[in-house]
Amino acid sequence: MDNVIDFDRYDRIRPIRWTGDSLELLDQRKLPFVVEYVRCDDSDAVAAAIHALTVRGAPAIGIAAGWGVVLASRTVEAANGVEAAAKLEPAMQRLNAARPTAVNLAWALARMRRVLTAAGSDWRAVLEREAQAIAEEDLAANRRMGALGAALIPPGSGVLTHCNTGSLATAGFGTALGVIRAGVAEGRIDKVYAGETRPWLQGARLTVWELQQDGIDPTLIADAAASHLMKTGQVQWVIVGADRICANGDTANKIGTYQLAIAARHHGLKFMVVAPSSTVDMETPSGDAIHIEERDPGELFGVGGVRTAAEQVGAWNPVFDVTPHELIDAIVTERGVIERPDAAAMKAAFGG
Amino acid sequence: MDNVIDFDRYDRIRPIRWTGDSLELLDQRKLPFVVEYVRCDDSDAVAAAIHALTVRGAPAIGIAAGWGVVLASRTVEAANGVEAAAKLEPAMQRLNAARPTAVNLAWALARMRRVLTAAGSDWRAVLEREAQAIAEEDLAANRRMGALGAALIPPGSGVLTHCNTGSLATAGFGTALGVIRAGVAEGRIDKVYAGETRPWLQGARLTVWELQQDGIDPTLIADAAASHLMKTGQVQWVIVGADRICANGDTANKIGTYQLAIAARHHGLKFMVVAPSSTVDMETPSGDAIHIEERDPGELFGVGGVRTAAEQVGAWNPVFDVTPHELIDAIVTERGVIERPDAAAMKAAFGG
Repeated sequence: MDNVIDFDRYDRIRPIRWTGDSLELLDQRKLPFVVEYVRCDDSDAVAAAIHALTVRGAPAIGIAAGWGVVLASRTVEAANGVEAAAKLEPAMQRLNAARPTAVNLAWALARMRRVLTAAGSDWRAVLEREAQAIAEEDLAANRRMGALGAALIPPGSGVLTHCNTGSLATAGFGTALGVIRAGVAEGRIDKVYAGETRPWLQGARLTVWELQQDGIDPTLIADAAASHLMKTGQVQWVIVGADRICANGDTANKIGTYQLAIAARHHGLKFMVVAPSSTVDMETPSGDAIHIEERDPGELFGVGGVRTAAEQVGAWNPVFDVTPHELIDAIVTERGVIERPDAAAMKAAFGG
Repeated sequence: MDNVIDFDRYDRIRPIRWTGDSLELLDQRKLPFVVEYVRCDDSDAVAAAIHALTVRGAPAIGIAAGWGVVLASRTVEAANGVEAAAKLEPAMQRLNAARPTAVNLAWALARMRRVLTAAGSDWRAVLEREAQAIAEEDLAANRRMGALGAALIPPGSGVLTHCNTGSLATAGFGTALGVIRAGVAEGRIDKVYAGETRPWLQGARLTVWELQQDGIDPTLIADAAASHLMKTGQVQWVIVGADRICANGDTANKIGTYQLAIAARHHGLKFMVVAPSSTVDMETPSGDAIHIEERDPGELFGVGGVRTAAEQVGAWNPVFDVTPHELIDAIVTERGVIERPDAAAMKAAFGG
């Protein structure tokens, strides 16, 4: 099925470019108005870029961190991988601290550490191959998920997505947006709606821009308009990404996802979660065990530096919410599709 | 029950002030950062202020239009009401055209026209008394609704509201916010959450400011965080206003209201609609018969003049949605409470 998709046509954006001696990161803070790559010549510049949200999206952060380790290796002399690992550990710690809540960051650094400690005198080449592999595997997983997820969608469908889960958040193609790209390419999806995703407006700033680059014309809606949209019959599937998928299928994702799942079920629509298997956390039994991060209330006080809310008001700004597995019709990873996920189905797919 | 509420303490804001020879309107475009009244010396200035959203909220618009007719009368010579009505009709038409979709605007002008055509040589005094009566009746209705609605709320409750339905939108006290004021005054409500209400941010700009003036500390949330809030158990009632209530209890209100009603039902929470009986439209059988106004997509492209969305993106911007009566636990008007509203209960309360 992968063959039918013209990947080049529907996936033009790359947020991370490795030049051979530096890393270039598409500055996502300036999108959609300025398309500008920030050049990182050493690992601390990569850590700073991750911290500053120049690069965002869990898979993209992991990939950037891998290249950050490669850059760190350029300043180190070592006879073998074990010796190099010891010398590189401080730089890896600084990379890991750049966004401590991003699972993929620690996961990518663990991969780099593992191959390094097994390497001999060729440790530099091993490191660079692993960083490349992390990126290539992510892109391949996204293309695979795109094909798997799109196959669930009947021709002529409308879909609604939330936040940004696209090329910008990954090595390319995207997770939920990858399914949407594949669905458009295969003629299954006629209409794409994107929620603006307050407070950071990833939908308005990133998702609609990214889709436009690939010739897909999305329609932006206020987050609060989603249920009314569903009632009009314009969408058949809600398709979102995930920050963590628990052992029973409960899924943590951007705030607002849970509300979309409730509304989709109310209207008899389908709800799909798309994420690489590295997002599955079989150690966390259910969503109840997830601590929901709350961010600065100030994010709700304005937009783009313009204050809109009254002074001295209190606000509550949870970053994620948890969608219980009962509201999810399908979880798509690169390993396959889990329909009506629950603890038994997740265990069958991922062990543990 | 009205007696227990210290109205002065909990209701300090007045959006409309009649000075005797001019109308002063609190400029709601500049709130919450600038508190400034715009002075209108003639009826066309009032019409312009209504059109420009200087004054907003269906009841407030009706009240302003009433005073607009009084200002128009200052430039007219007539021996009796019928003659005056003919001469004032062009000004009334211009007022009516300022916001054609606001039901209360036409309703207030119809009241002014009716008393005028019945008046003799004292028609100037009759007009001024009617404008005053529209304002006073609105305030009294809001206080009554506040007491009726608050009585439904158990002590120690948290509530969530949407948009602005407060003193700013009425002669004073507000509709849904009036219930919240009364509930706080009676010790029934411990915690008030306000959704920011994209795209115009009436919650963030107006509701939280208005409540702060009265010593009530609201907590602002993103519209997309409402369901997660409900899941945490912090709210027991969702309380909203209405733009139109149909003969079967279906209610049109600000976009996002329907989504809150779905989520409230999903969590077993209660949902209350608060509006004066002038909002009830027994001529419209159900929500299916309501045309949902769609506004400029550009409202979703930024905030406060700052563009946030990509250029040339499409957007869908419905202003209202319809909450079906099955999802409403109580409709509160100044005439009483209708629990579990349906066509039979509405007919019993409002005839037709």
